[in-house]
Amino acid sequence: MRALTSIEHLTTDELLYLVKRARQLKAGSPPQVKDGLVAANLFFEPSTRTKMSFEMAERKLGLTVLPFEAGFSSATKGESLYDTVKTLEAIGVDVLVIRHPENNYYEPIIDQVKPVIINGGDGTGNHPTQSLLDLMTMLEEFETLEGKTVTIVGDLAHSRVARSNVHVLSKLGAQIQFVSPPEWQAEFQVLFSLDEAIETSDVIMLLRVQHERHDGTQSFTKEQYHEEYGLTEARMAAMKDNAIVLHPAPFNRGVEIADAVVEGDKSRIFEQMKNGVYMRMAILEFLLKEEAE
Amino acid sequence: MRALTSIEHLTTDELLYLVKRARQLKAGSPPQVKDGLVAANLFFEPSTRTKMSFEMAERKLGLTVLPFEAGFSSATKGESLYDTVKTLEAIGVDVLVIRHPENNYYEPIIDQVKPVIINGGDGTGNHPTQSLLDLMTMLEEFETLEGKTVTIVGDLAHSRVARSNVHVLSKLGAQIQFVSPPEWQAEFQVLFSLDEAIETSDVIMLLRVQHERHDGTQSFTKEQYHEEYGLTEARMAAMKDNAIVLHPAPFNRGVEIADAVVEGDKSRIFEQMKNGVYMRMAILEFLLKEEAE
Amino acid sequence: MRALTSIEHLTTDELLYLVKRARQLKAGSPPQVKDGLVAANLFFEPSTRTKMSFEMAERKLGLTVLPFEAGFSSATKGESLYDTVKTLEAIGVDVLVIRHPENNYYEPIIDQVKPVIINGGDGTGNHPTQSLLDLMTMLEEFETLEGKTVTIVGDLAHSRVARSNVHVLSKLGAQIQFVSPPEWQAEFQVLFSLDEAIETSDVIMLLRVQHERHDGTQSFTKEQYHEEYGLTEARMAAMKDNAIVLHPAPFNRGVEIADAVVEGDKSRIFEQMKNGVYMRMAILEFLLKEEAE
Repeated sequence: MRALTSIEHLTTDELLYLVKRARQLKAGSPPQVKDGLVAANLFFEPSTRTKMSFEMAERKLGLTVLPFEAGFSSATKGESLYDTVKTLEAIGVDVLVIRHPENNYYEPIIDQVKPVIINGGDGTGNHPTQSLLDLMTMLEEFETLEGKTVTIVGDLAHSRVARSNVHVLSKLGAQIQFVSPPEWQAEFQVLFSLDEAIETSDVIMLLRVQHERHDGTQSFTKEQYHEEYGLTEARMAAMKDNAIVLHPAPFNRGVEIADAVVEGDKSRIFEQMKNGVYMRMAILEFLLKEEAE
Repeated sequence: MRALTSIEHLTTDELLYLVKRARQLKAGSPPQVKDGLVAANLFFEPSTRTKMSFEMAERKLGLTVLPFEAGFSSATKGESLYDTVKTLEAIGVDVLVIRHPENNYYEPIIDQVKPVIINGGDGTGNHPTQSLLDLMTMLEEFETLEGKTVTIVGDLAHSRVARSNVHVLSKLGAQIQFVSPPEWQAEFQVLFSLDEAIETSDVIMLLRVQHERHDGTQSFTKEQYHEEYGLTEARMAAMKDNAIVLHPAPFNRGVEIADAVVEGDKSRIFEQMKNGVYMRMAILEFLLKEEAE
Repeated sequence: MRALTSIEHLTTDELLYLVKRARQLKAGSPPQVKDGLVAANLFFEPSTRTKMSFEMAERKLGLTVLPFEAGFSSATKGESLYDTVKTLEAIGVDVLVIRHPENNYYEPIIDQVKPVIINGGDGTGNHPTQSLLDLMTMLEEFETLEGKTVTIVGDLAHSRVARSNVHVLSKLGAQIQFVSPPEWQAEFQVLFSLDEAIETSDVIMLLRVQHERHDGTQSFTKEQYHEEYGLTEARMAAMKDNAIVLHPAPFNRGVEIADAVVEGDKSRIFEQMKNGVYMRMAILEFLLKEEAE
């Protein structure tokens, strides 16, 4: 395999292998990557978590990381992504992590270039490494997702995370339900209110209210969103005993999640960030090992 | 100690230890930092000197440094500094150097997070590593500051450096006097003109005229400032034989300091920059050693 | 030698040594650079290729590379390039690669500072490392340039590459001819159309149409440029059997070069990028070795 662009391309065996391997790396297993490999992270959209997480994972694997500033590259001279990637290939880069605002930006690239490509998020499309770290975090909590109920809450229409997760969660036997304001439901069927969904959920997966992608035409204020769709302290108290809360972050305290819930005992939000580093190490190791064979 | 936010929190013993240790490191003493530690430098204001100096110090100590672009981080999505820092903690960062335009930005953070925090400058408040490198440079010249006279010249009102230095210099027995135009005197008492102060000073500590923070309402031009408050060649010649000139830089040649004085024989400006690397190594080593205990 | 600012300062022996050494490094010869040296790349203009190529070369040589963000440095506070460089010298940087929009920006710096200076491109002036990697790529193809014909096509007036290459190619015995629209001919004498030049050329060296430097007053559209001055597939087919195509990139597909020609069998464009890393390693090694003596 030369690329991870969408989680839908992974088999169940591959998904479970990556979770197992990430947990081994978290437990201290030494990484298996050959010496002298070079990575570059091409982030054409702002990011702290995903970019820093990859930067850390790459260094923990012993990769050399070349700095790339999207806002100061030849992309500003109109160079296409394909030509930028071919350039980095010629310079000797072995693996590229790319975040880009266009859906499926990677299609003209994969199979055309030598470096391994990892999709760090494309437009409103895929974000496979986030889905994998979410999966790892759920499987740390529950032996299996078979028969578990996962509720995805929020802006389904603009979420890179929702679509990827629906696919992988169903594959692993979870029940998925959705809660969302009408204007953000997209193709998803919303059957419950958050209060109803809380009672039956093992996982509440909150999505970010993405202020920067919206046009200001929503029919609700932040306060109204919090009241109807936010995970308040009262709602957290109504959750099942072993249920957990996930959020891909950055989160908006007081909008989709109450301040105290972020650090509450059901929250696995910071554990997700921690797991992200190990999952990305597992992914890089996996793709670069195939590479070497 | 988990943080260095203000020099006022350091005891005299700690101040003198850090100077001694920085001088040892400058003389070639090997640094004592355990392997595998990770640093990130969060600069929310432009800086060459302080940021590059920390970047160098961290590498000389063998730390892994994760790149962080403030202008391209989730801070642009409205993430609070606290949440950014919690994210970096989860990702595995051990030490954070932060420069931020708000005074006391660090208060909601320290004691709430695991990484060591070093203040790289906050608003018009503290800049403890600058004060320490100034101190190191003075103590390389004089055995003690007891009985020495230090004159601080310039924009006292907007200076991060002036306030920190006043505290530490008094503690170590120096006499401090101020020279400043009326609109920049703030709470400081100005008793002398620069010409009078020159005669009795062992150290002339110039402050930067910070054009970018001013509103253009000052009552003087650059030329007038230079004439009344600038360190001209004539004034340098009037200084005591062993007296020295300090400036935290970046300096404005022809405004607070004459061109030729920057490279003149009384200037320790480039020595300050050099010492900055060793002082920051000493501080990092000190905080990360406590950490390990 | 403490600097490489213009290729015109290199003797023929030095030129040929650098090509030989770069080819050795490409073949796997271990680099010869002492430990503990520090580099910084000061790019005051956007660049992917040249900056990434230097970043890679520096790491392959084992240098420590300090990150420098021009748009977030003290240069934004009005600091002169000389003072920025003196700062980096004080902090302990051994080699600086600089790209700057002003012609001859380096004149006030070289001979005044300790770090080795490598010109990564200045205004419309010099770009010596590009000329050297072009030379390397030509000498990989032909034993010698004696008697070979090189045609330089395009925007001669704004090209950093054209001027440097004319000098070095003549020195090594090549015949040089020019093809350019009237408004971009500058001091160069244009004797042929591209169709005439094709027949006699061993090397077609295309220059970039630099949209971002132009004022929109050209008398031709992109399509017209392509028709008259672009390397189309038909023109590629008319080239001599062993002739090759060079382009410093980033290239504009469909303007100065047809899409299919970029990846065509006469194109050495990606090989140039690859060679760039080894040539920059050779240059760094050469300058830092002299340094050590």
